Amino acid sequence: MNKNYYAIIMAGGVGSRFWPVSTNQFPKQFHDMLGTGETLIQKTFHRLNKFIPQENIYILTNEAYNDLVLEQLPEIQQNQVVLEPAMRNTAPCILYAALKIQKENPDALMLVAPSDHWIEDETAFSKNVLSAFEFCKANDALMTLGIQPTFPNTGYGYIEYDTESEHDIKSVKQFREKPDYETAKSFIKQGNFVWNAGIFMWSAASVLKAFKDNQPELYHLFEKGNVAYNTQEEHGFIQENYGKAENISVDYAIMECSDNVYVLPAEFDWNDLGTWGSLYDKLDKDTNNNAVVNARTLVEDAQGNMIRTKDNKIVVVEGLNDYIIIDKDEVLLIFPKDKEQEIKQVRSKVVDTFGENYS
Amino acid sequence: MNKNYYAIIMAGGVGSRFWPVSTNQFPKQFHDMLGTGETLIQKTFHRLNKFIPQENIYILTNEAYNDLVLEQLPEIQQNQVVLEPAMRNTAPCILYAALKIQKENPDALMLVAPSDHWIEDETAFSKNVLSAFEFCKANDALMTLGIQPTFPNTGYGYIEYDTESEHDIKSVKQFREKPDYETAKSFIKQGNFVWNAGIFMWSAASVLKAFKDNQPELYHLFEKGNVAYNTQEEHGFIQENYGKAENISVDYAIMECSDNVYVLPAEFDWNDLGTWGSLYDKLDKDTNNNAVVNARTLVEDAQGNMIRTKDNKIVVVEGLNDYIIIDKDEVLLIFPKDKEQEIKQVRSKVVDTFGENYS
Repeated sequence: MNKNYYAIIMAGGVGSRFWPVSTNQFPKQFHDMLGTGETLIQKTFHRLNKFIPQENIYILTNEAYNDLVLEQLPEIQQNQVVLEPAMRNTAPCILYAALKIQKENPDALMLVAPSDHWIEDETAFSKNVLSAFEFCKANDALMTLGIQPTFPNTGYGYIEYDTESEHDIKSVKQFREKPDYETAKSFIKQGNFVWNAGIFMWSAASVLKAFKDNQPELYHLFEKGNVAYNTQEEHGFIQENYGKAENISVDYAIMECSDNVYVLPAEFDWNDLGTWGSLYDKLDKDTNNNAVVNARTLVEDAQGNMIRTKDNKIVVVEGLNDYIIIDKDEVLLIFPKDKEQEIKQVRSKVVDTFGENYS
Repeated sequence: MNKNYYAIIMAGGVGSRFWPVSTNQFPKQFHDMLGTGETLIQKTFHRLNKFIPQENIYILTNEAYNDLVLEQLPEIQQNQVVLEPAMRNTAPCILYAALKIQKENPDALMLVAPSDHWIEDETAFSKNVLSAFEFCKANDALMTLGIQPTFPNTGYGYIEYDTESEHDIKSVKQFREKPDYETAKSFIKQGNFVWNAGIFMWSAASVLKAFKDNQPELYHLFEKGNVAYNTQEEHGFIQENYGKAENISVDYAIMECSDNVYVLPAEFDWNDLGTWGSLYDKLDKDTNNNAVVNARTLVEDAQGNMIRTKDNKIVVVEGLNDYIIIDKDEVLLIFPKDKEQEIKQVRSKVVDTFGENYS
């Protein structure tokens, strides 16, 4: 494997729309959401480890999840777990990790990827990332993989690319925030819009240059630590300075304001597994079109349900359609699938009513 | 308390319509179905123990439940647990217990009561039983308490009494099996019909005479054991002979064919707690008309549900009405309340599919 290839897996989120399975103590990416025997972060790690050396894969996460990461990824060392002492969105932690990586290997090419997404065709994924890496090696470029939209989804950001180029890799015209339905429809119709999946590729040199040019204050805050990174002094420096960083996303900090941004429309099917419904879509169904994970079911006149328990419990359901039925230790959730966006609020309500233990 | 008063609590049933809470290993009568802190058999025992000496209360049950009985009723001795080595319906075990009791106390007056029914006004219950006992002391009578019917229930047997007497205690004209709806309506309209709740009172002498007259074969089978009862020899005799007894109910064996049968229309509200729905009816409801036992709920647009978990679980339900939602160790049941009669079949299906463990 190419020793210049690096990856940063973003694993700091909480996934509160997957409550009660996903909790503050044990978020979504550390669960086997698909019932495959691997947790989402394990799937992501192994997908990347096919072409990126395991010692070059870093996990960016919250201090609270350090032990979970090491437990689930025994292949990595403590120094590969980059801990955020405070929540500051994606730009600060990506900048910090890029500085660490550049200090170790100035020729590094980096992939940034969420820890909790579903990608069907791993071969197509590798192929797309590798061709982006080649482009980033030859050019001062900030790259992203864009997902071919299958319908006018209003829950994702879109990337508009230049139609003039005949290359696979397109120059980005602009990033567009989550659109309303009519706008989304027009994007699809135009044909040169793809979904922003939060998958980025660049050389360490290019991304640091972009931060220096566009976010000089943030850049200098972290650049001061260069002498400390990858040494005993790093922890102290980060503890002292991380909290001072601006809370800003990498999209906003560098991608939306740089003119060397490119997108490669992806050749693989993707899903952000953002809700129980999107998980339902990706799971195999039984003969009644129910998606069942870790449960044994006996259903009668019950279709389109997402059913999950903890220890392969027996679930008997009659006369219920399109529900999310989740059983987990101290919580049982029976909720209409078409209201899945409200589960976040339900979680808050449960916490308000019964205490922080259930968050 | 009157030392001549005795009770037999019938505790051999399985309560399969309360599956998955009620199971072969742990039937309904041993559960705190009402969420009061007492199991049904404990409630029944304490109700009787207000006017019947505790050493005179016998529990008739299956060998498999001996330990459960002693654990839940520490007030009693092993010799008060009368074990049926085989299922033979109610007549054989009542006859057997009556012979034991008569040998101990020839002046005994006996009450037979199910272990798993709900009786609201315990004072009225005591009063009714005591006046029946007085009648049985003075007369050679087989007595029953009849429940005033509140609607044309087709799930109970009815007792028709003579309207000529002006006494509270009425001579029984006939027992009527579960009627169809039109017949039940006509019973209610006639006014001299009450529900048969399986609560019987008689002197030991009268019930034994009734068995001798109406079921001579059964009587002689058990009468042979008289020398053995209440001695070391009893167990051996019963093991050898009980299985030979005819499978027959006490109603059919003596009540329906005797002419000295009387009924006292009861002054208390009663429920046989036969199904989740009847339990729902008797439980307190929350503001959304849900009955909740051992659970903490957060409901939205969800009414008329019967919700029970094991360890005070949090249950979040939205958009579901008139369901039975039962969570218990390895089984979760979500079932329409109006199909509760099918739960028995569901239990069989689960056992067929997933094994005897879940019966």
